[in-house]
Amino acid sequence: MASEFDLIARHFTPAAPGPEAGVPLGVGDDCALLAPRPGMQLAVSVDTSVADVHFPGDAPAAVIGYRALAVSLSDLAAMGAEPRWCLMALALESDEEAWLADFASGFHSLCQTSGTALVGGDVTRGELAIGVTVMGEVPVGEALSRGGARADDVLAVTGVLGGGAGGLALWQRGERDLDHPLLARYLKPVPRLAAGQALRGLAHAAIDVSDGLLADLEHILAASGVGARLEREALPLATGLREVLGEAAAYRAALCGGDDYELLVSLPGHLLGEARRRLAGQGLMLTAIGTVRAETGVTGVDLDGAHGWQHFRGGES
Amino acid sequence: MASEFDLIARHFTPAAPGPEAGVPLGVGDDCALLAPRPGMQLAVSVDTSVADVHFPGDAPAAVIGYRALAVSLSDLAAMGAEPRWCLMALALESDEEAWLADFASGFHSLCQTSGTALVGGDVTRGELAIGVTVMGEVPVGEALSRGGARADDVLAVTGVLGGGAGGLALWQRGERDLDHPLLARYLKPVPRLAAGQALRGLAHAAIDVSDGLLADLEHILAASGVGARLEREALPLATGLREVLGEAAAYRAALCGGDDYELLVSLPGHLLGEARRRLAGQGLMLTAIGTVRAETGVTGVDLDGAHGWQHFRGGES
Repeated sequence: MASEFDLIARHFTPAAPGPEAGVPLGVGDDCALLAPRPGMQLAVSVDTSVADVHFPGDAPAAVIGYRALAVSLSDLAAMGAEPRWCLMALALESDEEAWLADFASGFHSLCQTSGTALVGGDVTRGELAIGVTVMGEVPVGEALSRGGARADDVLAVTGVLGGGAGGLALWQRGERDLDHPLLARYLKPVPRLAAGQALRGLAHAAIDVSDGLLADLEHILAASGVGARLEREALPLATGLREVLGEAAAYRAALCGGDDYELLVSLPGHLLGEARRRLAGQGLMLTAIGTVRAETGVTGVDLDGAHGWQHFRGGES
Repeated sequence: MASEFDLIARHFTPAAPGPEAGVPLGVGDDCALLAPRPGMQLAVSVDTSVADVHFPGDAPAAVIGYRALAVSLSDLAAMGAEPRWCLMALALESDEEAWLADFASGFHSLCQTSGTALVGGDVTRGELAIGVTVMGEVPVGEALSRGGARADDVLAVTGVLGGGAGGLALWQRGERDLDHPLLARYLKPVPRLAAGQALRGLAHAAIDVSDGLLADLEHILAASGVGARLEREALPLATGLREVLGEAAAYRAALCGGDDYELLVSLPGHLLGEARRRLAGQGLMLTAIGTVRAETGVTGVDLDGAHGWQHFRGGES
């Protein structure tokens, strides 16, 4: 099925990466050749998006292509890394050329806006699934990891929460207007790449909110050996979320819904102002939602029913 | 399904990569952090192996794990790159822990012998498929690509041909002795990593023989804008291949069978001796099988029936 990946790659030809993209040799040989920059470490991750597990299989092809890359880039954002390159492993049931062209255009659009060069991939036959390997660069010693949160740090989150779960609920109710703000947050999440880079040197720890705020907070706490107190009333709910889901479910969505792809960071309180200023320059909010405590465990939110939320997600970040 | 990838990763813990492996941060964060060496370019590739397309789904789990990595590493070999890191995207139908442990042990064994560190991955639910992204290093300007073959070059191939197709035929006849030489060549191919590195500075072009000698030769010829004459009698058939398949089918297997994972190279005739000496030091043959010609097209072999060979392969290299 070389022709199918070739078809995808052809959509990238007008913007074929040149020397400035650090791609001495791109798609079409046994390997691509990449030129990392001196003084940088590589940040690498792979995420597989499976139809009807991680996204609705009947979503528009361009949305599926965009979203598969977005969720992988979100992992680079969480490390404070600058995206550089990606590879795509696509499993397809059909070989409809129009679908592939739309899929490629969605993937390509995010490659362009994020500065990511597609440098390789393959296509196999199977249930629709997209595995995307992303590679970014971060100055040596400056990456944000999950470990490093310290007692008395402020916990803060970019943007708003619950939109992923709210959008999924709308999709399941039959809403198909992709410009609906909640649906857009679910289907076309914006990886917080510039925010992650701006938080380097400020945040002690960071993660992207893909599995749900509480689940991802737990990853930070476990890696850092600390606990947290959250302020339920401080959670920045996505606009319209209460109206769509109701008050209780809106908070459950913000705490456990997943698919938000915002950044959750732990940082010293005295740096919160500077962090906010940097993100404000990007038009992005940063909301303090709690504090890190030496005692393990999470307090401050009612977790009753928190694990009952229905969502597509089944994989790992 | 974090637990399933965690289970796989646990098999790697005794050999968890340290600073010497260039892995400042390994499995378990949003991304792994890697430290490329100065003066090196990265060679990257992804290959997806699908059950009953690229390998028999009922092969032993350890073989499946080994083989999925081997076919990806073969792409690094073809570039002359030294393997460094890999990521695994695994789709599984069941979650049988014994199967996963065996799978991981097979994958791990090749990681160890090849010097490749597993730095990330994910597990999703679906038909058994393994996507492996490999990352290697090659000194700037020394990578072997497909383009670069020149008229009057010698075409040469490492090891023997046809074993992949012969082993598949045996498997389909019910042979299950994994020590059978042909079955071993099909199920446990040895990526020619040391050979690829040794051929840097000698070969004008290289490719690994995954789709079949003729198909892969065509890739070199197309990328280089040349043609070739092959010497049918020079083809190094795998030991026992004639006995298993018969004379005609043995040559078809060598020409079109695929799954051999040997290296096909184009090099100046006066360097053939030096190339052979280097590979002899590795216990590996290098056989001249033809010459590059300015005129496009391939002569010297009877292609009649060449495309009728049955094999599992359906994807791209």
